Amino acid sequence: MIVDCAAYEGGKRREGSLSMERAGEVAGEGGAFVWLGVVEPSKEEFATIAQEFGLHELAVEDAVRAHQRPKIEEYGDTLLAVVKTARYVDPKEVIEVGEISIFVAPGFVISVRHGNADLGPVRARLERRPDLLAHGPVAVLYGIVDHVVDRYIEASHGFDEDVREVELQVFGEGHNPTERIYKLEREVLEFQAAAAPLAEALEELCSGNFAIVPEALHEYFRDVEDHLRRVTGRIENFRQLLDSALEANLTQVSMQQNEDMRKISAWVAIAAVPTMVAGIYGMNFEHMPELQWRFGYPLMLAIVITICLFLYWRFKRAGWL
Amino acid sequence: MIVDCAAYEGGKRREGSLSMERAGEVAGEGGAFVWLGVVEPSKEEFATIAQEFGLHELAVEDAVRAHQRPKIEEYGDTLLAVVKTARYVDPKEVIEVGEISIFVAPGFVISVRHGNADLGPVRARLERRPDLLAHGPVAVLYGIVDHVVDRYIEASHGFDEDVREVELQVFGEGHNPTERIYKLEREVLEFQAAAAPLAEALEELCSGNFAIVPEALHEYFRDVEDHLRRVTGRIENFRQLLDSALEANLTQVSMQQNEDMRKISAWVAIAAVPTMVAGIYGMNFEHMPELQWRFGYPLMLAIVITICLFLYWRFKRAGWL
Amino acid sequence: MIVDCAAYEGGKRREGSLSMERAGEVAGEGGAFVWLGVVEPSKEEFATIAQEFGLHELAVEDAVRAHQRPKIEEYGDTLLAVVKTARYVDPKEVIEVGEISIFVAPGFVISVRHGNADLGPVRARLERRPDLLAHGPVAVLYGIVDHVVDRYIEASHGFDEDVREVELQVFGEGHNPTERIYKLEREVLEFQAAAAPLAEALEELCSGNFAIVPEALHEYFRDVEDHLRRVTGRIENFRQLLDSALEANLTQVSMQQNEDMRKISAWVAIAAVPTMVAGIYGMNFEHMPELQWRFGYPLMLAIVITICLFLYWRFKRAGWL
Amino acid sequence: MIVDCAAYEGGKRREGSLSMERAGEVAGEGGAFVWLGVVEPSKEEFATIAQEFGLHELAVEDAVRAHQRPKIEEYGDTLLAVVKTARYVDPKEVIEVGEISIFVAPGFVISVRHGNADLGPVRARLERRPDLLAHGPVAVLYGIVDHVVDRYIEASHGFDEDVREVELQVFGEGHNPTERIYKLEREVLEFQAAAAPLAEALEELCSGNFAIVPEALHEYFRDVEDHLRRVTGRIENFRQLLDSALEANLTQVSMQQNEDMRKISAWVAIAAVPTMVAGIYGMNFEHMPELQWRFGYPLMLAIVITICLFLYWRFKRAGWL
Amino acid sequence: MIVDCAAYEGGKRREGSLSMERAGEVAGEGGAFVWLGVVEPSKEEFATIAQEFGLHELAVEDAVRAHQRPKIEEYGDTLLAVVKTARYVDPKEVIEVGEISIFVAPGFVISVRHGNADLGPVRARLERRPDLLAHGPVAVLYGIVDHVVDRYIEASHGFDEDVREVELQVFGEGHNPTERIYKLEREVLEFQAAAAPLAEALEELCSGNFAIVPEALHEYFRDVEDHLRRVTGRIENFRQLLDSALEANLTQVSMQQNEDMRKISAWVAIAAVPTMVAGIYGMNFEHMPELQWRFGYPLMLAIVITICLFLYWRFKRAGWL
Repeated sequence: MIVDCAAYEGGKRREGSLSMERAGEVAGEGGAFVWLGVVEPSKEEFATIAQEFGLHELAVEDAVRAHQRPKIEEYGDTLLAVVKTARYVDPKEVIEVGEISIFVAPGFVISVRHGNADLGPVRARLERRPDLLAHGPVAVLYGIVDHVVDRYIEASHGFDEDVREVELQVFGEGHNPTERIYKLEREVLEFQAAAAPLAEALEELCSGNFAIVPEALHEYFRDVEDHLRRVTGRIENFRQLLDSALEANLTQVSMQQNEDMRKISAWVAIAAVPTMVAGIYGMNFEHMPELQWRFGYPLMLAIVITICLFLYWRFKRAGWL
Repeated sequence: MIVDCAAYEGGKRREGSLSMERAGEVAGEGGAFVWLGVVEPSKEEFATIAQEFGLHELAVEDAVRAHQRPKIEEYGDTLLAVVKTARYVDPKEVIEVGEISIFVAPGFVISVRHGNADLGPVRARLERRPDLLAHGPVAVLYGIVDHVVDRYIEASHGFDEDVREVELQVFGEGHNPTERIYKLEREVLEFQAAAAPLAEALEELCSGNFAIVPEALHEYFRDVEDHLRRVTGRIENFRQLLDSALEANLTQVSMQQNEDMRKISAWVAIAAVPTMVAGIYGMNFEHMPELQWRFGYPLMLAIVITICLFLYWRFKRAGWL
Repeated sequence: MIVDCAAYEGGKRREGSLSMERAGEVAGEGGAFVWLGVVEPSKEEFATIAQEFGLHELAVEDAVRAHQRPKIEEYGDTLLAVVKTARYVDPKEVIEVGEISIFVAPGFVISVRHGNADLGPVRARLERRPDLLAHGPVAVLYGIVDHVVDRYIEASHGFDEDVREVELQVFGEGHNPTERIYKLEREVLEFQAAAAPLAEALEELCSGNFAIVPEALHEYFRDVEDHLRRVTGRIENFRQLLDSALEANLTQVSMQQNEDMRKISAWVAIAAVPTMVAGIYGMNFEHMPELQWRFGYPLMLAIVITICLFLYWRFKRAGWL
Repeated sequence: MIVDCAAYEGGKRREGSLSMERAGEVAGEGGAFVWLGVVEPSKEEFATIAQEFGLHELAVEDAVRAHQRPKIEEYGDTLLAVVKTARYVDPKEVIEVGEISIFVAPGFVISVRHGNADLGPVRARLERRPDLLAHGPVAVLYGIVDHVVDRYIEASHGFDEDVREVELQVFGEGHNPTERIYKLEREVLEFQAAAAPLAEALEELCSGNFAIVPEALHEYFRDVEDHLRRVTGRIENFRQLLDSALEANLTQVSMQQNEDMRKISAWVAIAAVPTMVAGIYGMNFEHMPELQWRFGYPLMLAIVITICLFLYWRFKRAGWL
Repeated sequence: MIVDCAAYEGGKRREGSLSMERAGEVAGEGGAFVWLGVVEPSKEEFATIAQEFGLHELAVEDAVRAHQRPKIEEYGDTLLAVVKTARYVDPKEVIEVGEISIFVAPGFVISVRHGNADLGPVRARLERRPDLLAHGPVAVLYGIVDHVVDRYIEASHGFDEDVREVELQVFGEGHNPTERIYKLEREVLEFQAAAAPLAEALEELCSGNFAIVPEALHEYFRDVEDHLRRVTGRIENFRQLLDSALEANLTQVSMQQNEDMRKISAWVAIAAVPTMVAGIYGMNFEHMPELQWRFGYPLMLAIVITICLFLYWRFKRAGWL
């Protein structure tokens, strides 16, 4: 589905939208460039676009089937960038990964998105920055990548909060966070697989390898790369923290077990006293003088209770109760 | 055993199959190339082929004995590529690894396969793409490698499902998944050993190191490499997930142990009450007024049962029962 | 907020402070350079500075928003260095991270700091070293970075002490240090994220990549890099020690549990003896000769106590009590 | 001790053995080369050899003292290769490491071996391949290295079997395999230390760095390197499997503990029933109507046994017994 | 403190020692070189030396303050090498780390040592090797580094023994080795931090990067590097072994716990039999025929003892006792 198609000249949008045929013509004319936004196109739909703009067979296949690795590739004078979008859905604690393929050539930009990744705000923000758009179609690529990495930063904040919550669960009262830690680790790995390979692509973009990238944009891509590296550094830290949390949690479970065992044992010990004493005075020896004492029974009860209280106090002091 | 032997000219298969001798001649003539498909050849069988096509002693040895590492090597103007095929057998949860050696020279392609790896579909698919086959024998190499990597993707889906099943076992009810996790880890390692070294070989193929690889195919090999890197990234993730699952599982086992201990202890505590009380009233003191009471016995029973119920309720509330 | 603004010529400070407008003029004149110190500037405040000195849009954004990665970047003939300051707050066992952005151009240095990072001592120390300042604005960068890395060394000493304390807790008496180990690990990771990327930046500074860095300062930056590497090496060691401490701690917890279990079991065994014997003599058989013995009761008591003492001695010797 | 010394010309061995002095002369004449095989020479013994053939002081020291790292070094026009031999002694599950130093110069090869490493078969095999030996003294180096790596492959098979046995022990019945896993890990590490550095040396040999290595042998060394990489890949896998086995084993031990605890607890619970009931009817209340019932005693026994059987059945069903 | 100061010419020591002033003159004359040995100099003391020989401010600071990283640096035509000495103190199981800074320039060598590191034997050994000393001041650097690495090898042997002792403790009888393993790990890390960075420095020394290093010494430095790599390889192995030992130890502790639990439970089960039987015959039913039997009591005792012995035998056979 085509969502927007417009021509940009000298950093400004020409009024109105273009039909696809007209777009192809404008792309070939020079002086202006076309930005075509497509959402989850069918194979047939995209085949017409590919023919109109002369895209490479393999690049087309990659754009239609999602699930590519983030990358940047050159097919003739057309760049194909694939980036993964990531959104952290907090209540479910999952990372939702989408995908945007961007074709950049001297006369056009085609952005193909799959899954959650609204590019409307990017277009709006870029149209407010004619100085950037004046650098041509690569500026659109910059705008998209910058937007995506900003979403990564947001997602990493979401993780940060959940990791802190997990820590509270590990070291505070609360139910066993093992599953939560594991699930978070899974999501962190997925996030990392989405974000990390982009760094390599950005490095190529700001190193002057591609003739199509104007030098003035190098610093912009370097800036994005820098933000990305900050995110990937944090992701790496999350993984190490979750690893340690998993082990710390195991220790806490063992500690808990030990405390429970001590508590149980203390009560067993206290209960053993009356049982033992009662057993002794339940014996049937003929000559047990205590049994004939007038206050033998209350005395015995008193002694037993005293011992029990003493034990209780001792266990309390030793931290077993 | 020779399974198919045909000549290809301008991307089209010449009618019929060739005898081996005729194949050798065609390979030397130029203009066309021969594709010879061999399955688990005996040493003698392959020696004749090697002589006919002038293959290097070491390359021959590698092709006859399976169990090579995936690699790409140049012997004179002949390329030898070794790739591992992988098929995930789900009910048994094992990865079945086969091997294909492919000799590529200007006039011929020889594919030698060991184990599960039917190349029939590859030949059929390539014959439907004369534009690809027109690039010469290296196109056949591309077709095979592309097919193999597609099988890897399928295998990685199989792993994915089993890893998810294991997670359910770790965190849900069910019997101890330790052995299953370990076995999966073993298979993942084997898969990785089969798939990972291929990336290096593909990189060489798309970097222009080999004169025999036409430039038009570089992008195709790059595309396969990209798919492969996606698979190896996933394999790496499986390993990390299984590692974490092993540790999470240990924690779950400890948790289970603690819960069992609490449950047991709760029942022991409840049972201790009647035992203790019965012990007291089993004593033989002469002066124990309760013993003469008309309703001493039912009263005592009532009290004991009340205490037991109270304890039961307390343990229930504390989550011990 | 501007904290200090002065011109330096031939390594010496010109009397007094400059207004911002005057500073811009001096920076452009040549012969002298201006050092402008800014603390947590608002966006508007810094916009005027940026315009006065012609700073790049992206560099400005980085300087105003803290939370950048340590880095060194070139925008035209202006260097932007971002460094993280670190202070270890011992009673709380947290690392406090601040940030300094330093713009260095032929005519000026602008230092922008966020969080704890008093640059007063740096300015004072540099003004006592005219031989260094004579090398121009990059000397200021050296002074700041040297100061920051010296703070890292102090922070690493703080960690060192706490790691040693944790060890005492793990292997000595004391309460469960799991949480403390985990929290320290978290801080170590944060420290590492602040310090480690700086090494790369310093390497660039001493490798002659930047024309603005006078050769005489290369050795100075190399010296700082060396100190930094020593710190990052130690941080890495802390992480490994804390990892091992976490595992050793788990073992200690298990050991403790085992010892508790043995102690409890020993007491249970000792208590079982009188209970069992009392049970036997509580039976109602008509023909139990011991029951009629004159000293049956004291004899039985004596035997039971003897057995208990014997068991106590055995358990003591076996290390269970 | 000199074990064999012969001259080779055009790939063929000249009749008979040479005295050491004659060997030195032949080495200097050109046209032929000498292969001198030495076993654990004393310092004095080797000093004469070194002088005769003009070996470098440091190379000599390395050859006499065993315990070098595998390496390849150039001393003038003499290559010194040090390789470790490895033999897996299965009943003891230890790896036996030997060492061979090989001096290769245009006119001679000197092989010095320490520990288990019979080079007789290598010499015999090479003498059956005059085409190889015709490439000069480096062919001997190839023969030895190829032989050594083949032994590595055998050793890795030995490990493979033991790792599989260990797996059976971990997941089947049998006694605690912790020590065995640890010891295997130790041997794997030793094997790795012996084998892994050789890869680097082989890479140098097949990369054309050394003028003395004829181009025709490059492919041969590449082939050996390939086999070596397969072995080192497997060793790495063993380490990871043993690591996982150690952790899986810990989980199994915990599981076993939990099962034992459940079994014990089930029996304790069953035994608690008669004890409790008996306690109740052992009380001395005057008014306990059941005590006067004619069949009170057998009835009580019947009820107790029924409850016990019921509990037994419940525990059996729950998998506790 | 200056310990020795002598001039060397053509590999031979000139008679007697030099005063510091005279040393400075000789260093400048050419033809001979001066070796000045200093031990833990005060700041002032070293300042005079630095001035006499024209050492760089930063190099001087590094030499006076110990606690540098091992490194090699060029200040003008003066090399500064910093190496760490290591001595393993076996009874305490700690590694004692010292430091030597060596300034090498065409006319002089200054060795500054801190902590344990007697250079007397190095000087003596070098003076017995005029052929080496004839290569000039760098030969002294070689002599020191060679000596230091030889001490590393000794230290690694000390570790080796202790690791083996720890293994015996883990798998044999003996008290909990957790603390010992942890402490050894700490020392291994410290040793590694001292030794590993030296490899990089040695690599530079034998790669021809420094004009001052004569080519004839390249092979000598390569030899030392080789020995160092062997040591660092072993250190790395120690770390992995200690890691595994820590985990194996945890498993052993769990095993021990399980065995103790089984033993305890077995005794509890045996004791439960008489208690239960005694309870039954302690009941007060009027109609319990066994109670009137003449030999009821001894019969009951016999049955109970038989059951207990049977249980004992069963538990013994099952390995619980």
